[in-house]
Amino acid sequence: MTLKDYAALVEDRLNELLPEAAEKTPGIDETPWLLNNAMRYSLMAGGKRLRPAMLLACADMLGASREEAMIPACALEMIHTYSLIHDDLPGMDNDTLRRGRPTNHVVFGEGQAILAGDGLLSLAVELMIGNVMAHPDNYAGGIRAMNEIVRGAGVSGMVGGQCMDLYCEREGLCDERMLSYIHMNKTARMLISPLRAAAALAGYAPESPEWKALTAYGVNFGLLFQAVDDILDVVGDEKTLGKSVGKDAAEGKLTYVALYGLEGARKRADALAGEARASLAPFGGRAAFFLDLLDSMAHRAS
Amino acid sequence: MTLKDYAALVEDRLNELLPEAAEKTPGIDETPWLLNNAMRYSLMAGGKRLRPAMLLACADMLGASREEAMIPACALEMIHTYSLIHDDLPGMDNDTLRRGRPTNHVVFGEGQAILAGDGLLSLAVELMIGNVMAHPDNYAGGIRAMNEIVRGAGVSGMVGGQCMDLYCEREGLCDERMLSYIHMNKTARMLISPLRAAAALAGYAPESPEWKALTAYGVNFGLLFQAVDDILDVVGDEKTLGKSVGKDAAEGKLTYVALYGLEGARKRADALAGEARASLAPFGGRAAFFLDLLDSMAHRAS
Repeated sequence: MTLKDYAALVEDRLNELLPEAAEKTPGIDETPWLLNNAMRYSLMAGGKRLRPAMLLACADMLGASREEAMIPACALEMIHTYSLIHDDLPGMDNDTLRRGRPTNHVVFGEGQAILAGDGLLSLAVELMIGNVMAHPDNYAGGIRAMNEIVRGAGVSGMVGGQCMDLYCEREGLCDERMLSYIHMNKTARMLISPLRAAAALAGYAPESPEWKALTAYGVNFGLLFQAVDDILDVVGDEKTLGKSVGKDAAEGKLTYVALYGLEGARKRADALAGEARASLAPFGGRAAFFLDLLDSMAHRAS
Repeated sequence: MTLKDYAALVEDRLNELLPEAAEKTPGIDETPWLLNNAMRYSLMAGGKRLRPAMLLACADMLGASREEAMIPACALEMIHTYSLIHDDLPGMDNDTLRRGRPTNHVVFGEGQAILAGDGLLSLAVELMIGNVMAHPDNYAGGIRAMNEIVRGAGVSGMVGGQCMDLYCEREGLCDERMLSYIHMNKTARMLISPLRAAAALAGYAPESPEWKALTAYGVNFGLLFQAVDDILDVVGDEKTLGKSVGKDAAEGKLTYVALYGLEGARKRADALAGEARASLAPFGGRAAFFLDLLDSMAHRAS
């Protein structure tokens, strides 16, 4: 199974979980069509489904139930999408284009975009709770998986990273320690949590060598992801990327390229990929998906 | 135990859960001081703690563990607070004053206020998950309690209600069916969920007469709460309320008063209080807190 194969599974399931709704006054206890369609607009906007694919691939590698892993995987993508909607708002990054389409608030208005984000986070949690209740034989694993996803996206994770990113941008100050906080929490945490969630579903404890190896992979892969992002903002193609380039330099942002230069950033990316590769040793041939992922990440153009 | 007694317990616990933080670069996996303090600013702004008090009082009435109920109670208040922060944003109601103090975005800026709301919802869920894991003897009850709270606040609950409220306000159209959806989901659901969460913790199933009686109380109490709100917007005192009055009429909002007139709205409120009182019959003398609550709600001035 490749990234594309897993992405197709996720795409289908997301489409089932949040189908297009027709306009009508909602019955009590129903989701309004408008909220449904605003959430769907951003959720089905052609993302790469990287995070849910990693969760499913890791579940397969560790022998967890793919059926049980599907809802946490979709929930993770909903949380990722909510963060993009809120990030694009005028009060945050004020972006009007995302993946080549107008951003959520441009289409639905600012208030509805805030609610679409709130709704996707709420729906993600609802679905995961339902999934835990549907698998009473694995209560502990299901709750621990949900815990990893929610904590990774929360105040000491993604939201914390966003807060410091916005703060540094507005205050115009950022040192290397702060930058490393932002990369780790805004970017890497949401790439670590799919692996840990799958490990929790498979019954691995945080003390196990597998958990530690997966965390090491996630950290290095997450930082590699960020380094490549920074490099692409300098050398990438706007059309292929679906977003404007050169923004970081124009805004004087502290990036891998600003810190180490273009060649230095590439060397740093290679080193991170090497670390990530080494951490997969305990899984041997079962880790093919994650080895391939490193190669495609290192060579990605979008 | 009165509402004030329960509110004091909640106040203390919230204060412990989110103490003031000093400014410093956060360590990896730490919540940034800025996010912490922005969340705290609104959370500790002197709310009545009605929803968590109802959860604790209901847990006491049904013989659930008050210790186990404390985190869901605090989580509910965090979710209520997040909804107020987002509701006050310029893209939503654009309010600059709440409980006599500047709103969150006025103090911290729009971007940080969005994140403070996102953070409070995330933290509420994190804390509830931790609480479930800390009480493995009551896994099923804990998860079902969390389910009630998250669903009540979600896309087919509070967020759904907000969405339709905003839609009606912007489009300038609203009929009675839509109004009843908004009242039920924006207001009543968050007053039903504390009761159902307590019932879930105490082991009651949705089919039980107790669950149904509590739901009936919550619905009628919630609608009573809304009716009194509408009446106070006409006859209330700005200073006592801590917010401006006459807004509904100025905006041409469809309210109980607009629908039934002032006297009609008062009669409707009396009828709702009567329904709520009757639904408490199965609990006899143990329901004193909830009987008192009806009286204080019917006579509240703020």
